Amino acid sequence: MYKVKVYVTLKKSVLDPQGVAVKDAAVGMGYPEIDSVRIGKFMELMVEKSERDIHDVLNEMCDKLLTNPVMEDYRYEIEEEA
Amino acid sequence: MYKVKVYVTLKKSVLDPQGVAVKDAAVGMGYPEIDSVRIGKFMELMVEKSERDIHDVLNEMCDKLLTNPVMEDYRYEIEEEA
Repeated sequence: MYKVKVYVTLKKSVLDPQGVAVKDAAVGMGYPEIDSVRIGKFMELMVEKSERDIHDVLNEMCDKLLTNPVMEDYRYEIEEEA
Repeated sequence: MYKVKVYVTLKKSVLDPQGVAVKDAAVGMGYPEIDSVRIGKFMELMVEKSERDIHDVLNEMCDKLLTNPVMEDYRYEIEEEA
């Protein structure tokens, strides 16, 4: 069994209105230190071992299901094998 | 300026229907290796230096604005100071 952490971020060229809203809220709540906020997704997957290579499975799944490759980038870490 | 990465996850005792939906979709799309999925948030903040301690600012902001402390846990990494 693998424990996989997937980090999904908006590409730099894509506007992040949710992040702007959080940044404005932070400044309004008394945190003028906050300069910018970008919001992405963080997923923890438990993946069983199979005949297929774990990287093949993950890359294919990220491209097809977990992310929108037009607007988002992703990276993953395989954390433990037990 | 600090670059801060904040990871927000649902507490273990909280059901994650979005994660269950993604897991079911993955299995349906031909990835039976996927055992479970939990979905959280990942935020990248640029924070200016101020008189206040960066940890005080971040912990307060996470508790009040970025997370729901009843249902979510968070951790953060301060990545670089420039």
